[in-house]
Order: sequence, then structure tokens, then C-alpha cells
Amino acid sequence: SRVKMTPERNGPNNNNKNGYDDYLIEEEEGVNDHNVVVKCAEIQNAISEGATSFLFTEYQYVGIFMVVFAILIFLFLGSVKGFSTKSQKCTYDVTMTCKPALATAAFSTIAFLLGAITSLISGFLGMKIATYANARTTLEARKGVGKAFAVAFRSGAVMGFLLAANGLLVLYIAINLFKLYYGDDWEGLFEAITGYGLGGSSMALFGRVGGGIYTKAADVGADLVGKVERNIPEDDPRNPAVIADNVGDNVGDIAGMGSDLFGSYAESSCAALVVASISSFGIEHNFTAMCYPLLVSSIGILVCLITTLFATDFFEIKVVDEIQTALKKQLIISTVLMTVGIAVVSFIALPTSFTIFNFGVQKVVYNCPVQDVADSCRTGAATNVIFGLALGYKSVIIPIFAIAVSIFVSFSFAAMYGIAVAALGMLSTIATGMSHRIRERTDALDAAGNTTAAIGKGFAIGSAALVSLALFGAFVSRAGIETVDVLTPKVFIGLIVGAMLPYWFSAMTMKSVGSAALKMVEEVRRQFNTIPGLMEGLAKPDYTTCVKISTDASIKEMIPPGALVMLTPLIVGTFFGVETLSGVLAGALVSGVQVAISASNTGGAWDNAKKYIEAGASEHARTLGPKGSEPHKAAVIGDTIGDPLKDTSGPSLNILIKLMAVESLVFAPFFAAHGGLLFKL
Amino acid sequence: SRVKMTPERNGPNNNNKNGYDDYLIEEEEGVNDHNVVVKCAEIQNAISEGATSFLFTEYQYVGIFMVVFAILIFLFLGSVKGFSTKSQKCTYDVTMTCKPALATAAFSTIAFLLGAITSLISGFLGMKIATYANARTTLEARKGVGKAFAVAFRSGAVMGFLLAANGLLVLYIAINLFKLYYGDDWEGLFEAITGYGLGGSSMALFGRVGGGIYTKAADVGADLVGKVERNIPEDDPRNPAVIADNVGDNVGDIAGMGSDLFGSYAESSCAALVVASISSFGIEHNFTAMCYPLLVSSIGILVCLITTLFATDFFEIKVVDEIQTALKKQLIISTVLMTVGIAVVSFIALPTSFTIFNFGVQKVVYNCPVQDVADSCRTGAATNVIFGLALGYKSVIIPIFAIAVSIFVSFSFAAMYGIAVAALGMLSTIATGMSHRIRERTDALDAAGNTTAAIGKGFAIGSAALVSLALFGAFVSRAGIETVDVLTPKVFIGLIVGAMLPYWFSAMTMKSVGSAALKMVEEVRRQFNTIPGLMEGLAKPDYTTCVKISTDASIKEMIPPGALVMLTPLIVGTFFGVETLSGVLAGALVSGVQVAISASNTGGAWDNAKKYIEAGASEHARTLGPKGSEPHKAAVIGDTIGDPLKDTSGPSLNILIKLMAVESLVFAPFFAAHGGLLFKL
Repeated sequence: SRVKMTPERNGPNNNNKNGYDDYLIEEEEGVNDHNVVVKCAEIQNAISEGATSFLFTEYQYVGIFMVVFAILIFLFLGSVKGFSTKSQKCTYDVTMTCKPALATAAFSTIAFLLGAITSLISGFLGMKIATYANARTTLEARKGVGKAFAVAFRSGAVMGFLLAANGLLVLYIAINLFKLYYGDDWEGLFEAITGYGLGGSSMALFGRVGGGIYTKAADVGADLVGKVERNIPEDDPRNPAVIADNVGDNVGDIAGMGSDLFGSYAESSCAALVVASISSFGIEHNFTAMCYPLLVSSIGILVCLITTLFATDFFEIKVVDEIQTALKKQLIISTVLMTVGIAVVSFIALPTSFTIFNFGVQKVVYNCPVQDVADSCRTGAATNVIFGLALGYKSVIIPIFAIAVSIFVSFSFAAMYGIAVAALGMLSTIATGMSHRIRERTDALDAAGNTTAAIGKGFAIGSAALVSLALFGAFVSRAGIETVDVLTPKVFIGLIVGAMLPYWFSAMTMKSVGSAALKMVEEVRRQFNTIPGLMEGLAKPDYTTCVKISTDASIKEMIPPGALVMLTPLIVGTFFGVETLSGVLAGALVSGVQVAISASNTGGAWDNAKKYIEAGASEHARTLGPKGSEPHKAAVIGDTIGDPLKDTSGPSLNILIKLMAVESLVFAPFFAAHGGLLFKL
Repeated sequence: SRVKMTPERNGPNNNNKNGYDDYLIEEEEGVNDHNVVVKCAEIQNAISEGATSFLFTEYQYVGIFMVVFAILIFLFLGSVKGFSTKSQKCTYDVTMTCKPALATAAFSTIAFLLGAITSLISGFLGMKIATYANARTTLEARKGVGKAFAVAFRSGAVMGFLLAANGLLVLYIAINLFKLYYGDDWEGLFEAITGYGLGGSSMALFGRVGGGIYTKAADVGADLVGKVERNIPEDDPRNPAVIADNVGDNVGDIAGMGSDLFGSYAESSCAALVVASISSFGIEHNFTAMCYPLLVSSIGILVCLITTLFATDFFEIKVVDEIQTALKKQLIISTVLMTVGIAVVSFIALPTSFTIFNFGVQKVVYNCPVQDVADSCRTGAATNVIFGLALGYKSVIIPIFAIAVSIFVSFSFAAMYGIAVAALGMLSTIATGMSHRIRERTDALDAAGNTTAAIGKGFAIGSAALVSLALFGAFVSRAGIETVDVLTPKVFIGLIVGAMLPYWFSAMTMKSVGSAALKMVEEVRRQFNTIPGLMEGLAKPDYTTCVKISTDASIKEMIPPGALVMLTPLIVGTFFGVETLSGVLAGALVSGVQVAISASNTGGAWDNAKKYIEAGASEHARTLGPKGSEPHKAAVIGDTIGDPLKDTSGPSLNILIKLMAVESLVFAPFFAAHGGLLFKL
């Protein structure tokens, strides 16, 4: 906030570029400082208003869903013992008496609502911080790359800390409040707490899908008419869809990702807690050991706080090239500190019969063999697309082996608890993770931008796989299934149908982006054709209509994919029973991870190939350029195709696999008691 | 053969179009009959020579592989009991004595070689029939659509009958010869016979991958320069890559598909036989019941023979529109006759304690919502690609539900045997299936062409899934695994890595097509730029260099994907053991089916969208056309991207999932005895 948005009137003489020599963006000729600041403030207001209004509209719809689903949770879970208020025998420790199923239904519902509301607040505050930082970063960028980097990085860190701290605080308070009622019945307590994860991640789904459709509809629509047809630059104010595009970045990439990360965090914590509650920690009532997952997250916040200081306060960045190095340094410092921190926490918090756990922090090596993809633009868009798809498919190999090794190692150390904690370990650098996204805004020319994003996405997908597996394990144990044997037809049909779900889901989201982008293209074309002077920059385009198109489309289109994810576990569990549901979860997990990684990296590769040609940094790149050349046009087509893949379908699939697992876990007692209707008939 | 390729000299007066009014292709102006026939014969010779020379080169390479792999099979299986020549106790009926493992190793090797050679012969003869029919269909097409249809359909039927009869004959003879040695030891006998399936499908893999790369490299290369850059029609003789493209159709689509269908047939028969041999049929030594799968196939041949008569002899087709109806009629007649036939065979051949089996013949409903895709061409190639991908993803839904239902129903009737027989039932219309492909040659303008191809592909993929599952079941029982529990980490890491394999494999094949197409584009451009008079049709292009580029590329590029598929089960089984291998098989199956269906249908949708615009049959289509318009160019780009998806990656994936399963089955005793080295250390 120390960057002032209210202009200081220095008169037109003070046009000396503030004494800095290194510029990230060029100052507009003939516009004095005062006008730049006013213009920035104006644009920021337009974006902020658009984003706020979209989120409020979105929250109205998800609010209705939230209430309906909360009622469902209460009714389904309450019916497990026929809404009886009598206490019952515990499942795992039969010598004890546990609270009635009805109480767990009520507390699960409360936890669900808490998680959902915390998620919405996370997304909303994230968006506010981002719009607040947008214009400020631009203003600072005029003073040099170091200042801009510090503002962008700090705004990212604020959001990261907020998410982590917020999630931790609400969870900790909820556990302690619920404990007042549950007392020694930790089984019921942590069963109810899983509702928190479900709430967090169901909101994340709508945030991701709705925001993802919004941002890509605007982006694709703006690019197709602006860059391809009218040959005006990215983010040109003459483009009527430009404000919608920028609103989209804030509601999709920031608010959506904020909710998503909060959801991941809530889910992995809940997975670790529920596994622990039925293991020795829970049975021996060791509360400190029980809270170990929360302690790991707390350490993560401290570590990121220290790490952030290295990036913004201890050193200052002078030139653009240093950004890449600074971010790599961040990753290394945070990993080292985190490892030490976790070792200490483990030593103190865990019982002596436990030795130190293994935290499968894994790295996605993203080789960027983007020259191949750029080269293929010589022969047109088709070869570019083929190479990009192939590259995306290939990029699945290393992460999958890394995930497989993590699973095997962490399982060997502490079974499903090991997997849950490994997932949490991967998320513990959440505060650093967020900054990668925000930095893209100041650094659009850097082709390496997608590399760090790819590492971030690799972490997100890897942790999603681990979280989902841990939740799946908890579900199986809670539903009383002994083995999930692939060779029984009930499980196998679940497996193959589950593996199909990511495709169905992607088909819905991609089609939505496609339709919304078509509408946007028509509107932008209409404005260029009917508003006189628009192309010459003399008239203002009608931004509002474009914002409205994106808003309406995304609200309408997010419902079917959301319903698919939320209803599948309910339908399968109720009609086909827990074995088939296990198959569906396993199938969706193993197939969804592949689709998510390949979609993200295919999109990233096309984006990088385009940036590579545009930057023209090497002899080779210059033979492909400049902007507007045939290879560049082919690269733009690839990039446009990649947009919905890498920013809508890919990231939403993470949520799909986790959300179905946590939902199954919450409803497990109901499915175990009343599920499988179709086979019973 | 009744269509004469040697010209009848009627003199230049006899230019009266033979008295027919309905033409499928236009006669060239000013060229008399004699010249047309000579030209046809010339082109046919060039194509036939190119195809024969490619297949011989390919067979040299796969011959080496065949010998090496045969030795491997003998050594691995021989080592199970340390190359002992002593008889051993049987596995399933411990009261009996079975032949030594060394004998099974030797007979498995022989069966493998028999299967491999039969597959190669099937592919080669298929190619010969196709090139023989190519020119003849063209000549007949001058006389009207009915004549052309009859020639094309009959050539397809000849190939279908040949494949089915050939496969059946060799298998039946092998069983009876092996029985002379094995006597009452049917366990060993049918274990050895599984080698036949492995041989058939490993050759199919190389045929599909090598042929697939060949045909698409030539096709994509020819289209990119010819249609997009030079604006000359498809298959124009001025295009230097045109002969390579036509050779590719014969070696890829025909020889590759011939080997593939033979492989499916051999595998599903072997799967049913091996399951039966350890069930009551085998234990009671009921040879007629044992041969039930072979009887089903025999009935299939008879049914298709009758059905074919309906298409070519009982009715004659007069106009193009009737083709679609005739093919649908074929499908209905063959399904009805087959159902009756199978019921009769089941009644006679199966023991009375068996009632009639269920044959899960399933249909892929391919809705062709291609107008959407065509519409999206208005806004450029990018939206076309996005819509096509979305459509392909969506097309996964119905087939997967159909497969899941088939699996569940057929399993309920007769466990894994039911699944194997259901797969065989789906393949029993093999002779009709082939014709769909061949008819495309005479009917390139019919946008419905891909619909029947999609139904064919749906059958192929569905049967591949069922065959693979049955083989998987047989593998598990032969390897002595009791349950394949997803929740054990050994199985789960197999599952997630297995689900990754189709992506790795697709990445390899698509990249191969991309690279080979790039080389082809450069060569075609070079010829257009350096050969004077080529564009005006005055000079002949150098077809041979283009043929050589496709040949070299496909031979070189088919090795890595082939190695991936063939080595994975060996490496996983040897180092990680049978549980992880089970996971890999299940993962590859559930994920591969999705990738295969979506790749085939995405490619089909783009192809249809292009044909829809080109045909201009409706008012709506005419607003998008004509050829050369911007929407049409976007459609061509989509079609080009779809080529490797629908004709290289998609169909090869069928083989991947079946081949890994049959290979695991053949090597199961070795893995059970010596596998899992890494976990043993």
C-alpha cells in the first residue's frame, strides 16, 4: 500500500523517468506522470468492480448449492442410524461408547459450511489483494524491475500467508470447539471434521470452473479478434474485451487458485487427521501428535515468511534475468528450511516410538524442449498442434514416476498416514507457490514464465494425487471395505467409468470455453465494425457488454461440470455401493492425473513457443519471427488452443479427483449402511 | 478379377460413357477409354510396387525381432523349472501329471512363431487384395455407383473371409498337432497355445505403428503443401507425395488393420481357450465344448458370407445415397443371423448344464454433431481444434458405459469366460467390418464415411477392452495371484504408471508422424520449387523420393513405441513382480480405452467437419464454404491434426492394451517363479 495511487502533482517538467535506467514497460510518449497514475487508477477501478461484481454473482449461485448440499449431508448422514439420538458403540475401539450418528451428521454439516465459507473468503480476499497489487506493480515497474518484482512478490506472499493462516486457524478452532461436545470420542470428532475438507474443495470446484471459463472466454475472444484479425497488441485498450480479460485473470487465476489451494490444504489436513484419529495417536488420545499435520502447516508459514525476506528485503533485483534465479533460490531455501523445520517438529510432537517421517517433496523437471514446438510452426498451425500434444503427453512420464515413487516410499514409512503427510509437505510451500502466478503479470515477456508455473502445477497435481489417495484410503477404512479387488466386476466397472470422468469433465469445460469465446468474438467484431474511430483509438469501446458476456457464460456453464463431480459419488454410492465407488475413485485418480498434467503442459508448451518467437532472443528464434509472420500466426493458434487446456480443464481436474474422494469419505457411513440399492434389488 | 485391366481397344469413337447416367467420379475430358485404363494400370503398379517393397523392408526388421523374442520366450519359460525335462504335478488338478515346463516353453515358442507368421501373411495378402481392388474399383466407378460398390465390397469381403478362415485354420491345426504330444494335459496344451495370440498381436503392433506412421507422414505432408499452400486438389498427380500417400493407405489402413484384426481374433480365441481349459470343459476333457470359441468364429464366417450376398448379389445399388442404407442393412442382418447362429451352436456344442451365454454385442452411437465443429471454423482453426477435442472427449462417455455394462453382464453369466466369449462375439462380424474401410476409397465425398468407420472402431476398441480383461483374468489365475487390491502400494503404483503408458506411447507415435511429415513437406516444397513445369502438369514429380522418406521414417520410428510395449511387461514382471504388473495391466486398460476412443473420434469429427464444408450439401454448409474460404482452411488444419490421432495413435492403443495382457499371460509362470527381483533384494 506504500505505492501511492493518488497522483503527486509535480508538474509536467518532472518527466525524468525517476532516475532509473532499467525499464520493464515502456512509458507512453507524451503522457506525463500525473496522467499515467490517473489512467492506472481508472483501469484498476474498472477491473476491481468487474471482478467484485462477478464474484458476488457467482457466490449467490454457489450459496444456493451450499445450503442444498448442507441439507443433503445432514439427511444422508443422519439416516445412517435412522436419526436416533442414542449413543452407539465405536467402530474401531468397541470398548468405548461414541456419540450418536445424528450428532456427527450435524457437526459434519457445520464443518462443511465452515470450510465452504472460509474458501469463499479466501478466494474473495485473494482477488482483492490481486487487484490492489495490479496497478501498483505497473506503477512501480516504471521505476525499474526490482521495485516491480518486490511489489508483485509481496502481494503474492500476503495472499499465500492469508490462505494458509486462515485455513489453519479456522480448522484449529473448529477442532477445539467440536471437542467440547465430543470429549473422548475422537472417532466421531474427526469424522465430522472431514466436512471441512468437503466444504473447502466443493467451493474450490465452482471457483475454478466458473473463474476458468470466465477468464478463458475473455482471453480467447480478445486474442482471436485483436491479435489475429486486427493485428493489435495483447491488452490493447482499443480491444472491447480487454477489461473482461483482465477481470478474468483476477477471478479465475487468483480467486480460483486461492480457493483451490485452500481446498487442497483443508483436504490434506483432514485426510491426515482422519487417518491419525483411528491410528495410535487417536486411540491413545495424544492431542499433540494428533495435531502434527497442523504443526507441519504452521512451520510452513514460518519458513515461507523467512524465505520471502530473501526475495524482497535482503537482496534487490536489478535486471530481468535475475528474476528466474531469485525464484529458483526461493524454491531451494524454502525446501531446505522446511526439511529442517519438519524434522524438528516431528522430533518434538511425535511420540518417541515414531522416528522421522519421509516427506516426499518432489520436483517436476520441465525441460522446455520448446524449440521443437516453435520450429514446427514453420509448417503451419497443424504441425504445431501435433507437436504440442505430443510434448504434453510426453510430459506425463516423469511426474508419474515421481508420484509413484513418493507413494511407495511414503506408504512404506507410515501407510496412508505417510501419504497424507507427504501431500501436506508438498503444499507447505503454499506461500511461495502463489507468488509464481502473480509474477507473471510483470513478466509477460519472459518465456521461462511458464516453467515456474509448470513446477507449481506439478506440485499441485502431485499433491492432489497423494491427497486423493489418502482420502481414498480413509474412505475404504470408514466404509468397512476389506480389499478393492480390480478383478471383481463391481470394482472393475467402477474403475473404467471413473477413468472416463476426467474426459467427460474436460469435454464440458472446453466446450463451455469454446462457446463463450465464440460469443465474445462476435461481440468484439461487432464493436470494431460499428463503433466509428475505435480502431484509431479515438472512441472508447463498450467494455461492459464484454464483461457481461463472460459473467453470464461462466455462471451458466459452471453448473453441469460441477453437478457431474458432486453427484457422481452420491449416485454411484447410493445405487452401486461402496465397491463400485472405490473403483470410480481409483479410476478417476489414475486417469485424471494424466489428463491434468498433459493438458497443463501442452498448453504451456504452445504458450512458450509463441513467447519464444515473439521475444526473438536467439538467431533461431529470429528466423521464425517477427510478430505477424506465418510461423508466428501458427504459434498464436496453438497458444489459443492451449488456453482452455492449461487454465480451465487442467487445473479443475485436480479438484475433481480430490473432491470426489473427500465427498465419498464424508458420505461413507451412509453408503455403507444404505448404499448399493441396484444390486440389492 | 472379372474387371479387366488390359484395355479393350474400341477405338476413339467409343466415348459414350458406357450407357450409364450415374457417375461417382468424373471422366477426364479428352482422354479415351484406352488411355484411362492404361493410366489406371500404371498407377496401380506404382502403388503396388511401393507397398510391396515397404512391407518387405518392414518384415525384415520385424523378422529379427520375431527371432529374438522367440528365443526370449523359450529361455524365460524354460527357466521356470530350471530347464528340467521331468514331468510335474498339474497346477489346477493336482491328481494329474503334466508335461514338463520345458515342453511348454518349446511349444509356446512354436505357437508364437505360427501366430506371428500368420499375422504377417494376413497383412501382406490384405495389401495385395487392396491394391488389386484399387484400380478395378476406379474403372468400375465409371460405369456407375452400383458396380463400384460391388467391387469394393467384394474385395473387402475376400479379405475378411481370408483373415477369419486363415486364423481359424492355423489355430485348429496347431491345437490338434500339439494335442498329439500333450495328450490329456490340456493345461499345458492351452498354455502353449496362448503363444499364438502373442505372436499375432506383436506383429499387429509393428504393422499398425509402422504402417500408421507411413500413411500419416505421407498424408499430412501431401496435404500441407498441396491443399494449403499450392491449392491443388487431394490426390492430384502433380503432388510428389501422392503415390506415397496412396501406398500408405494400403500398407497402413489395410495391411496394418489386417494384422490388427487377426491379432484381436487370435487373442480373444486364446483368452477363451485358456479360461475354458482350467474350467469344467478342460477338466472333463470335453473337446467339443472346448472348441466352442472356434465354432463361434466359424458361424461368423458363414453368417458374413450370407450377409455379403445381400449387399452385392440380391440387390444392386443405383445411387450414392443407398450406400449408407445398404451398410446399415448389413449390420442388422449380420447381427440377427449371428445371434441365431450362436444360439444354435451354443445349444449343440455346450454341455446341457450350460444354458445359452450372453453375447454383449454393443453399438457405439456416433451422433455426428459435426455442424458445431464446422461452425467453429468461422472463428479460425483454434476454435475448431478446441471443439473437436471437446467432442472427442465427450464421445468417450457412451462407449465406456456400454463396455461397463457388457463386462458386468457377461461376467455375471460366466465370469472371465463370459467376457472372452463376448469379445469374440463382437469380432464375429469381422468380414463385414473390413468392407467399411475399403468402401471409403470409392466414397471419399460422403461425410457419413467416418460414421461407419467410427462404429467399426467402437467395436474394435470395445472388443479390445474385453479381450484384454479376459487375458488379464487368465494372467492373474496363471500367476497365482489371489486379489489385485488397489490399496496395496505395489498395485497402486502399477495402476498409475500403467495409466500413463498410453500417453507415452501416443507421444512417441504422434511425434514420429510430426517429424516424418516435416521431412515430407520439405521434399514436396523442394520439388515444386526446383522442377520446372510441375505445377502446370507438364513435368512428372519424383514420387520415389517421397516413398523413400515415408518408408525410412516409419521403419526407424516404429522401434521405440514397439519396444515400450514389448519391454514394459517383461521389466515390470521381472523387477517388480506380478502384483505391480497386474496394476500396470489394469491401469493401461482403463486409461488406454479412453485415449483410444477420444483420439479416434476427435480425428473423425474434424474430418467430417471438413467434408461437410466441402460437400456443401445444405444451406448452412454453403455459408461456410467453398473450398479455399477461411472456415475451410481452418477445417483443413483440424483435419490434419486429426490424422495422426485417428489413424496412428488411436488404433495402435487397442493393440497396446491387448498385447501387454497377452504377453504377461505367456510369461506368467516365469514372473511367478522368478519375478519381483527389486522387492526381493
